[in-house]
Amino acid sequence: MIELQCPIPISDYPVVTLAHGGGGRLSQLLIERMFVPAFANAVLETLHDGAVLELNGARLAFSTDSFTVSPLFFPGGDIGSLAVYGTVNDLAMCGARPLALAVGFILEEGLPMEELWRVIVSMQRAAVAVGVPIVTGDTKVVERGKGDGIFINTTGVGVVLPGVHIAPQRAVPGDRVLINGSIAEHGIAIMAQREGLAFETELVSDSAPLLDLVLRVLEVGGEHVHVLRDPTRGGVASALNEIAAKACVGIRLDEERIPVTEAVRGACEILGFDPLYVANEGKCIAIVAPEVADHVLETMRAHPQGAHAACIGEVVPDHPGKVFMRSRIGGLRVVDMLSGEQLPRIC
Amino acid sequence: MIELQCPIPISDYPVVTLAHGGGGRLSQLLIERMFVPAFANAVLETLHDGAVLELNGARLAFSTDSFTVSPLFFPGGDIGSLAVYGTVNDLAMCGARPLALAVGFILEEGLPMEELWRVIVSMQRAAVAVGVPIVTGDTKVVERGKGDGIFINTTGVGVVLPGVHIAPQRAVPGDRVLINGSIAEHGIAIMAQREGLAFETELVSDSAPLLDLVLRVLEVGGEHVHVLRDPTRGGVASALNEIAAKACVGIRLDEERIPVTEAVRGACEILGFDPLYVANEGKCIAIVAPEVADHVLETMRAHPQGAHAACIGEVVPDHPGKVFMRSRIGGLRVVDMLSGEQLPRIC
Repeated sequence: MIELQCPIPISDYPVVTLAHGGGGRLSQLLIERMFVPAFANAVLETLHDGAVLELNGARLAFSTDSFTVSPLFFPGGDIGSLAVYGTVNDLAMCGARPLALAVGFILEEGLPMEELWRVIVSMQRAAVAVGVPIVTGDTKVVERGKGDGIFINTTGVGVVLPGVHIAPQRAVPGDRVLINGSIAEHGIAIMAQREGLAFETELVSDSAPLLDLVLRVLEVGGEHVHVLRDPTRGGVASALNEIAAKACVGIRLDEERIPVTEAVRGACEILGFDPLYVANEGKCIAIVAPEVADHVLETMRAHPQGAHAACIGEVVPDHPGKVFMRSRIGGLRVVDMLSGEQLPRIC
Repeated sequence: MIELQCPIPISDYPVVTLAHGGGGRLSQLLIERMFVPAFANAVLETLHDGAVLELNGARLAFSTDSFTVSPLFFPGGDIGSLAVYGTVNDLAMCGARPLALAVGFILEEGLPMEELWRVIVSMQRAAVAVGVPIVTGDTKVVERGKGDGIFINTTGVGVVLPGVHIAPQRAVPGDRVLINGSIAEHGIAIMAQREGLAFETELVSDSAPLLDLVLRVLEVGGEHVHVLRDPTRGGVASALNEIAAKACVGIRLDEERIPVTEAVRGACEILGFDPLYVANEGKCIAIVAPEVADHVLETMRAHPQGAHAACIGEVVPDHPGKVFMRSRIGGLRVVDMLSGEQLPRIC
């Protein structure tokens, strides 16, 4: 029997706040205090990007994501392609090839029919690009003022590739931390668009499918690829903190090796954001054994989605559960999980 | 390449209306004109309650549903148990045993934390009752006034039982139309609660898991069970119209054999609803070959979820694509698909 008493004390958080959906510390609190104890089971407790289930000798990956991004259309993408790529990317992070997607729409009364059609066309193109069929769906409509245009849930099933064993717990000291390109592009593009900010360089979301890149990384790295993670809400900092905590290892980043474009760096300074905490939608962190690191990095760089790939750090035995960064001038600082809400409705 | 021009003429429907989510004619228009042509594939085109995919010799059922019911708590259930039962019921209607559920929450800023916890507790109990683990999830938070408390998407995967072949297209003339009890209870309970109507008898939703009942029906009826369908949004009338259209058969109902409680009949008269169009959340229509009909009906009646089961009609060769009803006094009338919106946000 589960507790009837709410496990998050009302005195701390009487109501749900935007930060509870931000991908940082408060999101984790909801998951750890409410969802995991309530729905207690071994698969959920792995807290990976998706669940992996055994079925007739196959390993089935299963992942869900709701998309509430505002605005619906932004430079580099829209809610439709984001919803397809987002869930397919989560399956890829389990080492799985997608089998099919289910789509649930929650539409707001008064949504222009043309806008819905633009989103559907974008989903269709994204699904074709990734080679995944959308096989089932559901549509609900809520009254004006009870939704916000379009919310989309996409849930995917996929098959984990043979010989592949991806899990946050597999990060071990000595492993290298790789990323396939410049960070913070999605979050900053959304924020600039939302605030109507004009920058000299157009800021474009990195929203993209990562399946093909991941398949090549796995081909080259095989079982030496220990962890894959797409650093969406909460950014690279939150994703790595989760991995460090689950694997009980430290992760040391090198500030000067983290790729950030000049445009994004400038916008972050103006908007007051740290790029390490800003969402990505076309980035993949790969934590791999040192013996394959160079080869995986070359493979990433040879791929259209990985031209600016870099090795940004290393898994270390000290400070287990923590992420820290060696700054350009040599100092070390702790890189915490995102606390509070940085950018609501980013995905 | 799909059409860039919106396939629903702006002159007809410039914007999405509540009726587009009502489960009737306009819902069907969205599906037939937009979703099916855009996402064109053979599995989606079956338009069943869920998709069935082949995997390593197993048949995987895959179904998604978003729940936006208002109010969140109602006599006989709440959004949490409804979201679990709803998707497990959809899998059951494919003849599948559930393997796992994924849950996506869209929460509105300001939602009392206690209310979220009550919903989670209810989901957990429902999942335990059905024996399905919730293995993965996602939580988003939208600003106050951009959502409505809690929306839940549940997506399920299951395994279709061997020897079972359920599809709307399998209805053939001579088949009997069975239902496991009184209709319209969910919709009327929600409506009475929402409108603050007091009736002498309390109106209680029939929200319930149908898996166990379906397993027994399949045990007894085997491959002679041709179609299973839970008549949710749009009610029995819309569900049967969809089946009649897909199977190119007529369906004749006998008014006097359709179970409706006195309380529901009275409330429908006061509220101006036809019970045939009102949503159910614990009812299953089974269309079965005549040789097993009596046995299946007895099996339903012996089950706690089927005490008031009845044979309500027959599949006939005439009027293909139409549902019609023989009234108490012997006349025949056409029972159309729901047109317009009857009860918004019923599930």
